[in-house]
Amino acid sequence: MSTHASSHQYFISRPIYSYPDFNVENECSGRTALRLIKSIFPVTDWLFRYPVREWLLSDIISGVSTGLVSSLQGLAYALLVSVSPVYGLYSAFFPIIPYFIFGTSRHVSVGPFPVTCLMVGSVVMTLTPDDDFLVPLNISGVNETTVDVEAREAQRIVIACSMTVLIGLIQVIMGLLQVGFLVRYLSDPLVGGFTTAAALHVFISQLKTILSVPTNLHADRYIRRHSKCDFPHVWALVDFSPPFGFFEFNAKFQHKIPVSIPIELIVTVVATGISYAVDLESRYGASTVRSIPRGFASPSLPDQGVFWKTLEPGFSTAVVGYAVAVSVAKVYAAKNDYAINGNQELIAFGISNVFSGCFSSFVASTALSRTAVQASTGGKTQVAGVISATVVMVVILALGQLLEPLQKSVLAGVVIANLRGMFLQVLDVLVLWRQNRADCLIWIATCLASVVLGLDVGLLTGLAFEICTVVFRTQFPTCSTLGSIPHTDIYRNVKGYKNIVEVAGVKIFKCNSPIYFANIDYFKEQLKKAVGFDAVQVFKKRNKALKKIQKLMKKEKLKTSKNGVVSAVSLCQENKGFEGEGDVVRVGPGERADLHLDWASKLPVPVNVPRVQIHSLVLDFSAVSFLDVVAVKALRLVVKEFVRLNVRVFIAGCDGTMVKNMESLSFFDEAVTKDLLFLSVHDAVLFIRRGEADGSLQNPALRSKTVKRFPLATVCSK
Amino acid sequence: MSTHASSHQYFISRPIYSYPDFNVENECSGRTALRLIKSIFPVTDWLFRYPVREWLLSDIISGVSTGLVSSLQGLAYALLVSVSPVYGLYSAFFPIIPYFIFGTSRHVSVGPFPVTCLMVGSVVMTLTPDDDFLVPLNISGVNETTVDVEAREAQRIVIACSMTVLIGLIQVIMGLLQVGFLVRYLSDPLVGGFTTAAALHVFISQLKTILSVPTNLHADRYIRRHSKCDFPHVWALVDFSPPFGFFEFNAKFQHKIPVSIPIELIVTVVATGISYAVDLESRYGASTVRSIPRGFASPSLPDQGVFWKTLEPGFSTAVVGYAVAVSVAKVYAAKNDYAINGNQELIAFGISNVFSGCFSSFVASTALSRTAVQASTGGKTQVAGVISATVVMVVILALGQLLEPLQKSVLAGVVIANLRGMFLQVLDVLVLWRQNRADCLIWIATCLASVVLGLDVGLLTGLAFEICTVVFRTQFPTCSTLGSIPHTDIYRNVKGYKNIVEVAGVKIFKCNSPIYFANIDYFKEQLKKAVGFDAVQVFKKRNKALKKIQKLMKKEKLKTSKNGVVSAVSLCQENKGFEGEGDVVRVGPGERADLHLDWASKLPVPVNVPRVQIHSLVLDFSAVSFLDVVAVKALRLVVKEFVRLNVRVFIAGCDGTMVKNMESLSFFDEAVTKDLLFLSVHDAVLFIRRGEADGSLQNPALRSKTVKRFPLATVCSK
Repeated sequence: MSTHASSHQYFISRPIYSYPDFNVENECSGRTALRLIKSIFPVTDWLFRYPVREWLLSDIISGVSTGLVSSLQGLAYALLVSVSPVYGLYSAFFPIIPYFIFGTSRHVSVGPFPVTCLMVGSVVMTLTPDDDFLVPLNISGVNETTVDVEAREAQRIVIACSMTVLIGLIQVIMGLLQVGFLVRYLSDPLVGGFTTAAALHVFISQLKTILSVPTNLHADRYIRRHSKCDFPHVWALVDFSPPFGFFEFNAKFQHKIPVSIPIELIVTVVATGISYAVDLESRYGASTVRSIPRGFASPSLPDQGVFWKTLEPGFSTAVVGYAVAVSVAKVYAAKNDYAINGNQELIAFGISNVFSGCFSSFVASTALSRTAVQASTGGKTQVAGVISATVVMVVILALGQLLEPLQKSVLAGVVIANLRGMFLQVLDVLVLWRQNRADCLIWIATCLASVVLGLDVGLLTGLAFEICTVVFRTQFPTCSTLGSIPHTDIYRNVKGYKNIVEVAGVKIFKCNSPIYFANIDYFKEQLKKAVGFDAVQVFKKRNKALKKIQKLMKKEKLKTSKNGVVSAVSLCQENKGFEGEGDVVRVGPGERADLHLDWASKLPVPVNVPRVQIHSLVLDFSAVSFLDVVAVKALRLVVKEFVRLNVRVFIAGCDGTMVKNMESLSFFDEAVTKDLLFLSVHDAVLFIRRGEADGSLQNPALRSKTVKRFPLATVCSK
Repeated sequence: MSTHASSHQYFISRPIYSYPDFNVENECSGRTALRLIKSIFPVTDWLFRYPVREWLLSDIISGVSTGLVSSLQGLAYALLVSVSPVYGLYSAFFPIIPYFIFGTSRHVSVGPFPVTCLMVGSVVMTLTPDDDFLVPLNISGVNETTVDVEAREAQRIVIACSMTVLIGLIQVIMGLLQVGFLVRYLSDPLVGGFTTAAALHVFISQLKTILSVPTNLHADRYIRRHSKCDFPHVWALVDFSPPFGFFEFNAKFQHKIPVSIPIELIVTVVATGISYAVDLESRYGASTVRSIPRGFASPSLPDQGVFWKTLEPGFSTAVVGYAVAVSVAKVYAAKNDYAINGNQELIAFGISNVFSGCFSSFVASTALSRTAVQASTGGKTQVAGVISATVVMVVILALGQLLEPLQKSVLAGVVIANLRGMFLQVLDVLVLWRQNRADCLIWIATCLASVVLGLDVGLLTGLAFEICTVVFRTQFPTCSTLGSIPHTDIYRNVKGYKNIVEVAGVKIFKCNSPIYFANIDYFKEQLKKAVGFDAVQVFKKRNKALKKIQKLMKKEKLKTSKNGVVSAVSLCQENKGFEGEGDVVRVGPGERADLHLDWASKLPVPVNVPRVQIHSLVLDFSAVSFLDVVAVKALRLVVKEFVRLNVRVFIAGCDGTMVKNMESLSFFDEAVTKDLLFLSVHDAVLFIRRGEADGSLQNPALRSKTVKRFPLATVCSK
């Protein structure tokens, strides 16, 4: 009864009070179709349950603030793409709508991101060199050429938009292939280094605009000749101040005021007013926004020819845009306890880019600063995003023309003021250095490569470097000799613990990483160091000794006793105790197989055979996660090398997958059987101890001690 | 006494009988200077102890055979470098001398290797286009141009030799930097795929020569016009047969005859004879060796301008040449139980190349086929190498001119016949496929890339692919839930063993690889699957439930009992047993901290809070070899997410280096202390059990069972 009542109430209360819980439906209803629709269109999962009373007001407040920032940033970031500012407004509007439907982040503010804008911009600049747009200009009889700015602008916007569609397609394809996980390769240090380098690139590109360095000499000369201003560089100083105003103001008062003052907006409005009043453009030749056409551009299909030309930078821009957006989204998701679906995000951003690319917009991602505004002013869902888009639409449809006198240098100031956060990442380097050298090096390498080689090649270089560091970290694994902690079955590194004892006659060797082509040599070297002898060398020496002994036996200077131990024929003074044993048999040549030499005792021939102090070697593979072809070949050889010295080899701690791995790599054969596998090191040691006890294994270290008193064989020094 | 006597004898016997043992000296004398000399000049370590009587004869036999093969291969491989055959003879002579002094391999036959020859050759061809050597040609009044073949040849040899010096310098520098270990990245599958692709390139390049496809149209036209042969392509058929003769013959009789018949030599001699008798060159325009100048070219310094042009291909050639030589050397070293010093080999090959590059030779490495001849005919040391060099010298000084009528197509046949072994490597792919997909993919990717993109770019691509596979293999580590094997302290994967039991209330989770940026998401996902709930989700739900409960409490619909458990104010029918407990206190808003809800029991509010069946989580880190910044951040978050659900987290099995790693990454803070570290999983489990016993930990799974009978709180369904 009670159960029924509560479940009944549960269904009543849910639609109104509870916030979207992606899992609830799955647990309760199990209707696959509905679940599918919800996973494809995440908006359906939460919009119908949107708590209007509680959240709508804060979403509206947040949306309006974000919309204002968004319009301004849109105008500014258009400079980075080298297109007219109005396209930035489009870019701040169009991508939000598809993301509202397909996105899974509630806090991200979708729109232009300076780094991706610059990446698109550099492609645009490369593909539209001024030389392609020269038209003859006839001024007072002198034949000159000038750049057809309008044609260039038209071409640029076609390229930027086509590339945006391409980026969107790449993202959608990646999303459908479910390769969102690959973005994990863009680790935090890598993204940090990359965005810092990108910020530097953006800064340099905008410094040009702020300082009014003429980027277009033809037009500039034309304007100067016809304007009344003889000192255009005087104006540069005036242009120069506003962005630094932002910096100073924000830095000084940030900690005093709870809500960040929209200083950018104030400066923009004031600057526009001054520019309009003084008529900066025509009187001083200042570069202003000039024209913001009212309304939207009509949709157009992308130029497919551009696709092929921009495939490579398009790919890196797609990856960067997505990676930045997802990392920002994840931060806010973690703060607000909800989950981001990586592959769905790829599809959402992809569709946004394809859609907005068809409406004369350029690539969308997110800007950290804008997302921060949206979240800090109380944005709860993407409803705030839609409202910010509405604000942008109002700017496009009604307020645009008011912004026409705004100087471009002010916009450049807006861009630079927004780079602050990215530049501050430099401080991470110090922290990283203390924490982890490898991660710090990734940061530095990516940053340097991106500064020197350009953003796309730099990103690739950083990635390659990062992947190499992973391999490098596994190439020199920590190998250790284990000892047992007395009275326990725990075996630990003999160097790390006090009162730890090595098992007599047994060497336990642990390797702390997968064993594969890059570290197999290092593994062998460490093993050699751990056991204290070179198995190949020992075997060679023993063979040499055997040969000499055989030679001496041929010459009848040596004989073997019944139990196979070699002894001298003529007895030495010291060997009197040995005399009593009597029955010495002669061994003919070719009977070498019968020779059982006690290698621990002194040999009757002058060969310096290194002592082997162990009879068993246990390889602890509990930390070895895989082997490859090269490693297996070498390991089998290692096992055989030890076995021929009568050192038994055991492998402990392999789990099921490792054993399967070894089987498929045909590690086991007649000589190397599965008998050498043990569940744990302690099991192997217990097995060895039992072997010692019943005599099938002998401890040469112990034996050599007892033997020393009665040397079994010495060459007589006649 | 005995000890003294034997050590005395030891010193007497050593110089005569024993073969070079690199360690003997170190052990006995410890004279560092001597050791240094021996490590720099390995020849000093063995030459003075060379067992003349035993080994000289077989070294001579081997040297002569190798010398003949070497001369022929030298002539042939010169075609690959696109220089005149005589330079191939030089290349088969000069590098052997420095290697004799500096090398550590006893069996490798130093000299040209087809793949490196082709790599140098492609650079030579690129840098000497025919257009650079056009000279006007005035034939019967018609103005034409022809290629100045001699000038081109001179330029080509300068480039080939300068590049060889560069390669040598690169190798020496690598050797001094002790980076020989980097060659381990060239794993067997990679080298296999690469050399197969290289063989294909070599084959195609030689097919051109065999089919007499004109490579030099100008000269060809000139010859055709002045020769009496109107059907030059008829000759192609004659040219075509010899190489296939090699193939057939060798393949058929290889297993029947113990010593391989020098079929190449026989064919060469016969072909030279025919060519001389019929005068193929002038009568049929066949391309022959033409001129083999007697004696050596005078030494010359390399052209440093070439260095900069060939830096990139020079580097890859240096690496390939060295890698192939060392892998061949290692095979023979393993067979004959001696050791190769990788860095010394780099220096030896480097010096060889620098030296021989100054004497008009091109890059030296080793050819598997030639080394096989040297070893199989009884070569014991590099004395055989020196003798083979002497044979080559005899050919240069005396026999060279006899070879002048030899057709180049026959030499091309020699090249192709020697590719057989490399082509047969294709069969490895099938074996690899069965053994290990990743290694097989490396083979295929490297081979395809090297065929399609060219050898140097292909090698790089293969390397990049190989490194990515390593990262990929660690990106999806096997994660498992461990259970205890009853009555032992062994914990193993619950899926892999029978009769294994999970510890009640405890989840033991093991990750089998380092945790870092690429696999941290996967790790978290697997952990979520293992514990059966999403910690974030659960926390959110609990919070929601708490809020609702507080709301109900405000409305006075719920009260808390003294021990903090929430109960309904008006008692339900089912709850009669609860009535007796009496003293219920009212809790005001804001006193949420006092609310101790029993999450395992039914809640008084309709929120579906997932059940948490565990009170402890043990992460087995025994197979985790390192963490990085990204992983540590995420892990700390994971720990905190569990702790706020009252699930205690323990980390077991970290060794000393891992703990240091975690410390430097500042994994530990006030919330995540070192108390969570345990030596082994069993220790952690014992600790948890003790906690359970003294009440500081409670098993929710067990408790929920007892509680179910007396539900503490239910909402009254009035």
